[in-house]
Amino acid sequence: MTTATKNKQILLAQMPTGRLTEECFTVATADVIPPGPGEVLCRTVYLSIDPASRAWMQAATYRSQLDAGQVMSGYTVAEVIAGDLPAGTIVGGDGGWQEYLTRPVSEIQVLDVRAPLSHYAGVLGTNGLTAYFGLLDIGKPVAGETVVVSAAAGATGNIVGQIAKRVGARVVGITGSDTKNAMLQERLGFDATVNHRSETFRADLRAACPDGIDVYFDNVGGPVLEAVLSRANLHSRIACCGVVSQYDTSTPAGGPRGVPGHLVTKRIRMEGFLVYDYADQKAAALDKLHEWVASGELVVLEEIVDGLESAPSALIGQLAGSNVGKLMVRVGADSA
Amino acid sequence: MTTATKNKQILLAQMPTGRLTEECFTVATADVIPPGPGEVLCRTVYLSIDPASRAWMQAATYRSQLDAGQVMSGYTVAEVIAGDLPAGTIVGGDGGWQEYLTRPVSEIQVLDVRAPLSHYAGVLGTNGLTAYFGLLDIGKPVAGETVVVSAAAGATGNIVGQIAKRVGARVVGITGSDTKNAMLQERLGFDATVNHRSETFRADLRAACPDGIDVYFDNVGGPVLEAVLSRANLHSRIACCGVVSQYDTSTPAGGPRGVPGHLVTKRIRMEGFLVYDYADQKAAALDKLHEWVASGELVVLEEIVDGLESAPSALIGQLAGSNVGKLMVRVGADSA
Repeated sequence: MTTATKNKQILLAQMPTGRLTEECFTVATADVIPPGPGEVLCRTVYLSIDPASRAWMQAATYRSQLDAGQVMSGYTVAEVIAGDLPAGTIVGGDGGWQEYLTRPVSEIQVLDVRAPLSHYAGVLGTNGLTAYFGLLDIGKPVAGETVVVSAAAGATGNIVGQIAKRVGARVVGITGSDTKNAMLQERLGFDATVNHRSETFRADLRAACPDGIDVYFDNVGGPVLEAVLSRANLHSRIACCGVVSQYDTSTPAGGPRGVPGHLVTKRIRMEGFLVYDYADQKAAALDKLHEWVASGELVVLEEIVDGLESAPSALIGQLAGSNVGKLMVRVGADSA
Repeated sequence: MTTATKNKQILLAQMPTGRLTEECFTVATADVIPPGPGEVLCRTVYLSIDPASRAWMQAATYRSQLDAGQVMSGYTVAEVIAGDLPAGTIVGGDGGWQEYLTRPVSEIQVLDVRAPLSHYAGVLGTNGLTAYFGLLDIGKPVAGETVVVSAAAGATGNIVGQIAKRVGARVVGITGSDTKNAMLQERLGFDATVNHRSETFRADLRAACPDGIDVYFDNVGGPVLEAVLSRANLHSRIACCGVVSQYDTSTPAGGPRGVPGHLVTKRIRMEGFLVYDYADQKAAALDKLHEWVASGELVVLEEIVDGLESAPSALIGQLAGSNVGKLMVRVGADSA
């Protein structure tokens, strides 16, 4: 299915010292590695662009720290072209920023494709599952409660808001853009939105949450988390998903005021989670997400840019807040 | 039972602007108020001295903020001398820093006294129950796990450590004093202790917790919480009980670094709680605490100072870390 012998890659050439720049990346060409026993050779179709990949450059987290000189890491949806799985099999995994990947079958996952292929890089992949488990298992909203989500127009946040609406919650989105906010209210049915870049952010948040905040799905940490803590209700829940406000820097700020003071006086529960902890419930959740996407109840927001070389600027733009919904790079043809 | 007509009180005369000082308090004399219908007149026996009372001066918390000119608030164990309960009945409640209190029966609690009266100001009162529910319901330690508690020689902390030992956990106490630490290990069986004032605190904590930290009972917040977060294990639990490091100031510090970053990467749960939320389980917990105290399995540490006028210096000393165990003032004779 391919006779390609060369594999274009993007390397993390140097570690960022402040904000991420294009100079941190370089394009390289390596030989395509033929699959050995128990391995597959795949061509990358979609490469997921995620803010967390900037955090991987800061320190070891739930994965080892990225090092300069490596092929940049990233989740990919890829098609098997040779090796120990049938050609045409669609697989997901950390394929990295490259056109071809050779991996042990044990390190990738065969995807049960029942929807457009791009969806498996986002709404029917890590983002959808993260929204689902973080909101429902950690946040536990009930009808009538106020759910606030930050990075609300992002790949995970927009799904959080939509699932919270299904639960019957009042949903308030926080983004850094009035345009994004208008889209969330008009297209996704968010009840209210707040722009965290506004000088009146704290007053706006108060106005948007007249009954306080019962559940906060936190993608950003920092000053937004601090503001939410001061409006949080008794026995409220904060699902800690990400800290995007502190990723694109070498000098992350201190923690939010109000920790642990507000937690004590208002008996707040703050809990971090990762989707990998829900492996046993994943299939059932994916069925739900497929059902909601198929019925149109869950609106899918995707932004697809073409060509592997677009990946650095896509990530840099994403960290600056430029995209809406799931951002991905189409590295090779989507023939599905 | 009394013919007293005058009631000595200590007023919060002025709000502290920095650390609490004796000048903030003044002694006053008021008339004893005869009980009206549905009320009781009581004489104070024990007045509990609690670090949280300094926090009440900072802002509204789980109670309204203290105001200058008021009788200073504080939990008291008192004896009914007239009114709608039999004389001699022992009651608990926020009687304040005064010799006599007149209260509606609905605002006090009749105590079922089965142990030395002083115990009801601490180990068989709010401190014991706070340790019990915070450790067992929020922290949920299991045998073999490492439990860390700060303010470990304090009224609540020492009980937390002792209950954690009962569970079979490895127990590490943090205090600001080597003398306190020696007592915790020798007298209460703590497995290890760390002095947070040491220049090598972080390294000492690491050495004391070779398998990381599974449960942290946090009485202090601030830099100690920050240090614990960096040693916390996957799926660890932090029971947020108090923030004593930030009480005796008008300029509380920002929150700890690592919130929410460590919470996400290590899936940590941080949860605030108040003993008042466990009213339905209180009787059963008190039975357990009585049983452990009676058998000597739970060592009771109390420091009793005499005379209402001692209360300001007792509180100021406590905020500076001078006491061990439960600190209280004997305001009137303990005739039990």
